[in-house]
Amino acid sequence: MSRIVMKFGGTSVADLDRIRNVANRVKKEVDAGNQVSVFVSAMAGTTDRLVGYVEGISPMHDAREYDTVVSAGEQITAGLLAIALQDIGVPARSWLGWQIPMRTNKVHSAARIEDIGTEELISRMEDGTVCVIAGFQGISEDNRITTLGRGGSDTSAVALAAAVNADRCDIYTDVEGVYTTDPRIVPKARKLNKITYEEMLEMASLGAKVLQTRSVAMAMSHGVRVQVLSSFTNKPGTMVVDEEEIVENQVVSGITYAKNEAQVTIVGVKNKPGIASDVFTLLADNNINVDMIIQNETEDGRKTDLTFTVPENDVEKSQEALKAASDIEFNNVITDENVVKISVVGVGMRSHAGVAATMFKTLADKGINIQVISTSEIKISVLIDAEYTELAVRALHTAYGLDVE
Amino acid sequence: MSRIVMKFGGTSVADLDRIRNVANRVKKEVDAGNQVSVFVSAMAGTTDRLVGYVEGISPMHDAREYDTVVSAGEQITAGLLAIALQDIGVPARSWLGWQIPMRTNKVHSAARIEDIGTEELISRMEDGTVCVIAGFQGISEDNRITTLGRGGSDTSAVALAAAVNADRCDIYTDVEGVYTTDPRIVPKARKLNKITYEEMLEMASLGAKVLQTRSVAMAMSHGVRVQVLSSFTNKPGTMVVDEEEIVENQVVSGITYAKNEAQVTIVGVKNKPGIASDVFTLLADNNINVDMIIQNETEDGRKTDLTFTVPENDVEKSQEALKAASDIEFNNVITDENVVKISVVGVGMRSHAGVAATMFKTLADKGINIQVISTSEIKISVLIDAEYTELAVRALHTAYGLDVE
Repeated sequence: MSRIVMKFGGTSVADLDRIRNVANRVKKEVDAGNQVSVFVSAMAGTTDRLVGYVEGISPMHDAREYDTVVSAGEQITAGLLAIALQDIGVPARSWLGWQIPMRTNKVHSAARIEDIGTEELISRMEDGTVCVIAGFQGISEDNRITTLGRGGSDTSAVALAAAVNADRCDIYTDVEGVYTTDPRIVPKARKLNKITYEEMLEMASLGAKVLQTRSVAMAMSHGVRVQVLSSFTNKPGTMVVDEEEIVENQVVSGITYAKNEAQVTIVGVKNKPGIASDVFTLLADNNINVDMIIQNETEDGRKTDLTFTVPENDVEKSQEALKAASDIEFNNVITDENVVKISVVGVGMRSHAGVAATMFKTLADKGINIQVISTSEIKISVLIDAEYTELAVRALHTAYGLDVE
Repeated sequence: MSRIVMKFGGTSVADLDRIRNVANRVKKEVDAGNQVSVFVSAMAGTTDRLVGYVEGISPMHDAREYDTVVSAGEQITAGLLAIALQDIGVPARSWLGWQIPMRTNKVHSAARIEDIGTEELISRMEDGTVCVIAGFQGISEDNRITTLGRGGSDTSAVALAAAVNADRCDIYTDVEGVYTTDPRIVPKARKLNKITYEEMLEMASLGAKVLQTRSVAMAMSHGVRVQVLSSFTNKPGTMVVDEEEIVENQVVSGITYAKNEAQVTIVGVKNKPGIASDVFTLLADNNINVDMIIQNETEDGRKTDLTFTVPENDVEKSQEALKAASDIEFNNVITDENVVKISVVGVGMRSHAGVAATMFKTLADKGINIQVISTSEIKISVLIDAEYTELAVRALHTAYGLDVE
């Protein structure tokens, strides 16, 4: 007997047939003697329609009302799945965020879970009833509905799994697991059977959209075993686990790319102590998330060029902020949105030398120019011209021995 | 300064433009210095879609889950109207049934209101904030969402108006008020400026679908002044009020017709004391709602014919019940679904003689045969062949002086 939290995304519950399919998957876990809670997203398309209503009424809407409207999507699916389960003989009831209660802070539309009322859920699960939970929603201390922001369903599922000491948190989606890279670019990409939290965290934040970054961080800090798997096949997925569980590490586990980065270069910045701090404090104050950074000093040392990357959407805001800053002197700002960040990720890097050298040589052999480099303990990222994306990802995938036989 | 409860039906909030239109109407009341609460229905079509989902998943669904799914419709509209109000500078917030709380009994999908938490609503209204309330929903003592059944929005609006001592409850709909009869049949039908609770109650139960019967009964027992008006024009509607408020009564206020009645005749019933009681107890036990009744004795007094009307849907059930009853002897059962019940309604009947005579003479003059007659203090109903419906309604409308000049 295990206690399992399952989570199904919007495409897995897109219509009544798929909701019935989900009910059958849940039944299998129940028939195997497991205690089960299930988180559901809104039926695919529903959240977009509701968000469209809100934005159609007013672009400057009250986030509390936004949450009231948008949370209706998960409410509908939760009721429907409970009915579908009852219909095939599985005792079930729906739970909305305020009924559990799933207590969050008051940051509407991007709320964080503070506390989960688990007593009644555990008692129901022990009685053999499946708890069908509307994902993505909670309740504030003001008794208003909050939402965790889009993708928050993963996070709420992992949070509940931690709170009820679940043996596993299964995240069902429309892909079969975590791949060594995007299979649409590299047909030889392999599904990973296991991946460490640290690697998953890097891959999630680097743009592999299988799991939300926040949910991985939460799983890591609470030691929740997370499985990513498809609701459309019966194959096992990818388990996200502690490093100790992985017997033989690949040096590199995956190659990711992120296209929504832009490069910004401030040319001819007057060099003085603390100038980098001034620039990046300014950007942080404007809520601009800076990622990679390099600084080149000119020969005489009196001027410098500062290059960094920001999300594509923030390029204009960055330029305006820099122009408005009276204490930062520079010649001009050059921006380039036609770039891609390619990263190789793997916990094996810690104990293997030469991983970076392999990356640089592989790209050089293909005639690809590296514009910016940044590294972390288990990741190396480079910024290159976007038109080389597929070429670079394929070459690196082969170079690190990731191609499926 | 008045305190007003407004209620808008599904066609009044069918899309974003109409929701904005509703916001403008609410703003007018606020600008006039009034305290306002607004009940909203689901956007037209939403409830049908949600009910379709539930029935598509399982015809034998859990009513608690049905309520969870279907109540999402009003939740969406409430949030959207709050945003639309804020967008034009009117302070507003949405309230769901469980937030108020609107406490009901546990009869899911047809719940009755037991208690309304008015303290916070009143305090908000006094602060100048419009309370936008999701109609049609409440919360049970089990902390589950209940719905009042379709049309329950009218009832919840009237119940709140009573609970907060509102000066008026305005029910906005897609017609301009209560008419002397169906304007689609009689172009000379007149909108009534005022109508008594008793008359409205008769007209509602006789098939004029402007207000739910339950909401009228509640308004009458609590003395809530209800106004029925159109959300698509700026004309005043019909006020439903106490009899004392109506200075000069028409003898007859309206003519209604109900087509969904069927006539059932049990021929040759063996006459014995209590036979009528046996028959109608049997039908009541089968949840069949009998309306008009007549009994004709045969000449020798040993047999009798019993005629009554039931809803069209219940004809088959009535026949089966009678055939299965061993203690009721009769020759056979004749049914006729091709009938219509025509009624004249008016509190003035109490003090005026000859109202029935006028009805019978008018119909006779047109060659219309009356099959069954029933009367109450303020109503006379006759059952006639359905093909005479329009002819009868028009003739009676003229005979009682109701035609517009």
